[in-house]
Amino acid sequence: MAKSTKQQQPSDSKMVSSELFILTYGALVNDLISDLESPEEVNRQLDKIGYNMGLRLADDFLSKNPRIGRCSDFRQVMELISKNGLKTYLGVIAQSNQIGNAGDEFSLIIDQNPLTEFVEKPVEFKDLCYSQVICGCIRGALEAMHMEVQVTLVADLPDPTELRIKFHRILHESIPAGDEL
Amino acid sequence: MAKSTKQQQPSDSKMVSSELFILTYGALVNDLISDLESPEEVNRQLDKIGYNMGLRLADDFLSKNPRIGRCSDFRQVMELISKNGLKTYLGVIAQSNQIGNAGDEFSLIIDQNPLTEFVEKPVEFKDLCYSQVICGCIRGALEAMHMEVQVTLVADLPDPTELRIKFHRILHESIPAGDEL
Repeated sequence: MAKSTKQQQPSDSKMVSSELFILTYGALVNDLISDLESPEEVNRQLDKIGYNMGLRLADDFLSKNPRIGRCSDFRQVMELISKNGLKTYLGVIAQSNQIGNAGDEFSLIIDQNPLTEFVEKPVEFKDLCYSQVICGCIRGALEAMHMEVQVTLVADLPDPTELRIKFHRILHESIPAGDEL
Repeated sequence: MAKSTKQQQPSDSKMVSSELFILTYGALVNDLISDLESPEEVNRQLDKIGYNMGLRLADDFLSKNPRIGRCSDFRQVMELISKNGLKTYLGVIAQSNQIGNAGDEFSLIIDQNPLTEFVEKPVEFKDLCYSQVICGCIRGALEAMHMEVQVTLVADLPDPTELRIKFHRILHESIPAGDEL
C-alpha cells in the first residue's frame, strides 16, 4: 500500500486509544501466526514489519522533536530512544542501562509496555517474541539516521520487556554528500 | 492470543501515537492482501477482525464513559458512536445523518479518518475497503450491547470515509435474565 510523503508540523501529534492499537497489533500477530509455520518465522516477520515502520517514523520523530540536535555518542542515542522515542510513540519511557564499558551496548527495560498489556502468551507460543516489532522499529529508525545497530529482545511476556541494542557502525555511505554526522 | 479480562478505571485512557497505529494497521492490511486471493476476501477478514475488536471494546467504552445511560432510540446510539465512540478510540468525531424517516438507518461521515491518512490506494486495489475494520468494530460493539446492526462502507479512499448503519433488531436472547434494555 503506497503512502505519500508526509510533511508533519512539530505541533501535530495526533493520538489514538491504546486499546485500539493493542487490538490491532494483536490481530496482526494472530494473522502472522496463522500464516507462518514457526514462532521464529513470526518473530522475523514482526522484526521486518517493525524495521519498515522505523524507517518511516524516523522523519516523523525528527519533525516532532525539532530541538533535538545531533548525538555525539551512542549513550545520547540511547537516552533519546528511552526517554523521547518511546514516549512519542508508545506513551511510555524506558530504563536504559549500559552493558560493559565500551559504551556501544545498552539494555532498555520497558516496565509498562502497552503492546503486552492484557496479553497472555499460551505455553505453546513460548518462542514467540511478541514485542519483536519494537526491535525492528528501533533498528529501522536508527538506520534511517545512518546508524547500523543490532537489537535483540531478551525478555518479554510475562516479564517486563527488555531489549539490547548494540552499535555496529555509522553508515557513511548513506549520509548525503556534504553532510556529516 | 489469549487476553485477560480487563478492569479499566474511567480515568485510565492511555494513548499511543496515531502514526504508530496507522503503520500497524497498514501492516495488517498488507499482510492480508499478500495472504488472501481477492480484495473482497480482505474486506471480509478486516470486517471480522473489527467485529472481534468491537466485542472487546464495548466493555472498555462503557467503563470509560460511566455517565452514559441507556439509549431510548437508535438516534441516540448514533449520536454516541459519532461523538463519543469515535472520539474515544480514533480521536475524531463524525457527522451523522439520518437516512429516510424510519429512524433506523444512519450515515456516518468521518472527514479526518486517521486510518486512511497518508495512504494511497493503488488502482488495482479499487475494490479494497481499507477502513472496513471500523464497520466490523461498530457491528461488534453494538452486538455486545445487544443490538444487531448492518454496517456498510459506502465511501473510503480517496474520499472521506462514509458508512451506513442500519438497525435490525434488539438481541433479547443475549440480554442477561432480569436485565432489560
